[in-house]
Amino acid sequence: MIPTKGYAVQDAKTDLAPWNFERREVGPNDVQFDIQFCGVCHSDLHQIKDDWGGSIYPMVPGHEIVGKVIKVGSHVKKFKIGDFAGTGCLVDSCRTCENCQEGLEQFCLNGFTATYNGIEQDKKTPTYGGYSNTIVVHEDFVLHVSDKLDLAAVAPLLCAGITTYSPMKHWKIGKGHKLAVLGLGGLGHMAVKFGVAFGAEVTVLSTSPKKEADAIKLGAHKFVVTNDAEQLKSVAGNFNFILDTVSAPHDLNLYLSLLKTDGVHICVGVPPTPYEVHAFSLIGGRKSLVGSLIGGLPETQEMLDYCAEHGIVSEIEMIHIKNIHNAYDRMIKGDVRYRFVIDMATL
Amino acid sequence: MIPTKGYAVQDAKTDLAPWNFERREVGPNDVQFDIQFCGVCHSDLHQIKDDWGGSIYPMVPGHEIVGKVIKVGSHVKKFKIGDFAGTGCLVDSCRTCENCQEGLEQFCLNGFTATYNGIEQDKKTPTYGGYSNTIVVHEDFVLHVSDKLDLAAVAPLLCAGITTYSPMKHWKIGKGHKLAVLGLGGLGHMAVKFGVAFGAEVTVLSTSPKKEADAIKLGAHKFVVTNDAEQLKSVAGNFNFILDTVSAPHDLNLYLSLLKTDGVHICVGVPPTPYEVHAFSLIGGRKSLVGSLIGGLPETQEMLDYCAEHGIVSEIEMIHIKNIHNAYDRMIKGDVRYRFVIDMATL
Repeated sequence: MIPTKGYAVQDAKTDLAPWNFERREVGPNDVQFDIQFCGVCHSDLHQIKDDWGGSIYPMVPGHEIVGKVIKVGSHVKKFKIGDFAGTGCLVDSCRTCENCQEGLEQFCLNGFTATYNGIEQDKKTPTYGGYSNTIVVHEDFVLHVSDKLDLAAVAPLLCAGITTYSPMKHWKIGKGHKLAVLGLGGLGHMAVKFGVAFGAEVTVLSTSPKKEADAIKLGAHKFVVTNDAEQLKSVAGNFNFILDTVSAPHDLNLYLSLLKTDGVHICVGVPPTPYEVHAFSLIGGRKSLVGSLIGGLPETQEMLDYCAEHGIVSEIEMIHIKNIHNAYDRMIKGDVRYRFVIDMATL
Repeated sequence: MIPTKGYAVQDAKTDLAPWNFERREVGPNDVQFDIQFCGVCHSDLHQIKDDWGGSIYPMVPGHEIVGKVIKVGSHVKKFKIGDFAGTGCLVDSCRTCENCQEGLEQFCLNGFTATYNGIEQDKKTPTYGGYSNTIVVHEDFVLHVSDKLDLAAVAPLLCAGITTYSPMKHWKIGKGHKLAVLGLGGLGHMAVKFGVAFGAEVTVLSTSPKKEADAIKLGAHKFVVTNDAEQLKSVAGNFNFILDTVSAPHDLNLYLSLLKTDGVHICVGVPPTPYEVHAFSLIGGRKSLVGSLIGGLPETQEMLDYCAEHGIVSEIEMIHIKNIHNAYDRMIKGDVRYRFVIDMATL
């Protein structure tokens, strides 16, 4: 077994603290990499606190993981020592169901293995995430990361990036479309970058007027303050797509009214309470309310390659691991521009 | 003005009763027809009772109207005296917005004129529906009805028919698809007929085991009792589409779990309270919750022609106008197979 340092939460009430644990040995198809950076996702906080239920403790969070390969198994073909590598939200899946066969491992019908707070396909071994110095992952779930980009700023692409890239590709958002991005946080700022790169006219919808300058700097064409009734009215029936990154409760009926006929409202955030949706909000204008979850392995690699080609990375603020609680407090207040990334050398 | 007999409700608290009123004179582009049959739609009941708000009294309900043309204006080209004709939920729209231009008059951006409980495009004249002996409609909003079909059984096609036909065409439901029809009432039984005609494998989901024989007779391939947990479990992750015709409150999360990855849940009923939808119900499996509203004029004519070609009509129970309240009582109890149609000769 591989002795490993990490930051873990021991139960739903304790805080993250240093923890020594062991990783599995590098098997024939495994890649071990030295974790250099790990992004801090809002879902880390939800899972630490067991907001969604079913959390497994002790828990080492983190699923926006990048680093350098330090060991490869004898059968590994895709990686060699010294390569930059990344792992996102999945470290395994059944590989046999129709979704896995199609590269939609995020929808594995037998349940994918989450990078942390998950269970391996042996149905008993817990998984530990990226707030750690090293990780061992089957090569099929390790992604190539370009050396052309700032490695730390690549980390958030593994979750925030693919979560916004995938639905835009699936619903073919691009030229000629008016896209609203609801919420300018970790996901939202990536959605703006992709929306602009794909050729859409991008409007940021935000409760915070202070974010307008940033939105424009990120490439957005317009900015609308959502609690200004007049501003909202000016975009009624305006958008082909809304990409909704908000994980706090919010009134979807209001946003559905901003869609054109046949418009699509895409949810990628997970509020703690159900949405309340009036049938008339969908029926009037034949609108769609849809969900999307991260992306499969082939699409995640495609996204990383696209980002390398187009120079797209996340806007980040680097933190010391010991400041993780302060980072969470700031995330809750929305005080992050736009993703915290832990420098794992500080562990 | 044309003296007209009808059945009207005078305010939200009174019952339907005989009422004499006047229709507009037949203008150059108008068609007047003798109403022979009018279907009874669940929405008649909602609007009489002002369940959705904004009802206009006195109200003559009815938007599944068929009869024979008795007068045409000097410029009318599409109809001649003696033709069978029908009118559905719309009698006018702005005709100039992008949706009207595309034949999506049901999504008229300036507001279509509902056949009853609506306001003409002059923004002041109320409209009166089909519980009446005659009606005058602009020829663009009058539909040709085949003389090959039972005229009384055609009436419900004008609302129940197009409401189910349109989303099936829009989402291209057909061969190779597993379609669930939720609720076997006026809309549901038409959805089964169209689903089967389009080549889908059709399963009826119903709370009422008594409806199984009818479902199979209508052409459904399978029947699942929705309050039998075991039966429901057997169809988890099973359907490409659910066509949801239920207008009573129901748990969408349960039904979303019956969809395959990328499945689509289509709402055509309007429950009085909002749906409660967990984000995870959509995100897990990239599912869509969508709405659809009747159909535009070109598609409604296409549907009527399709029905004439394929011998599709509604299953009806003919009633005398004086029994309309009894019919409503039975509709509320779900005791209708599958659409009441008023013989307007009884007026």
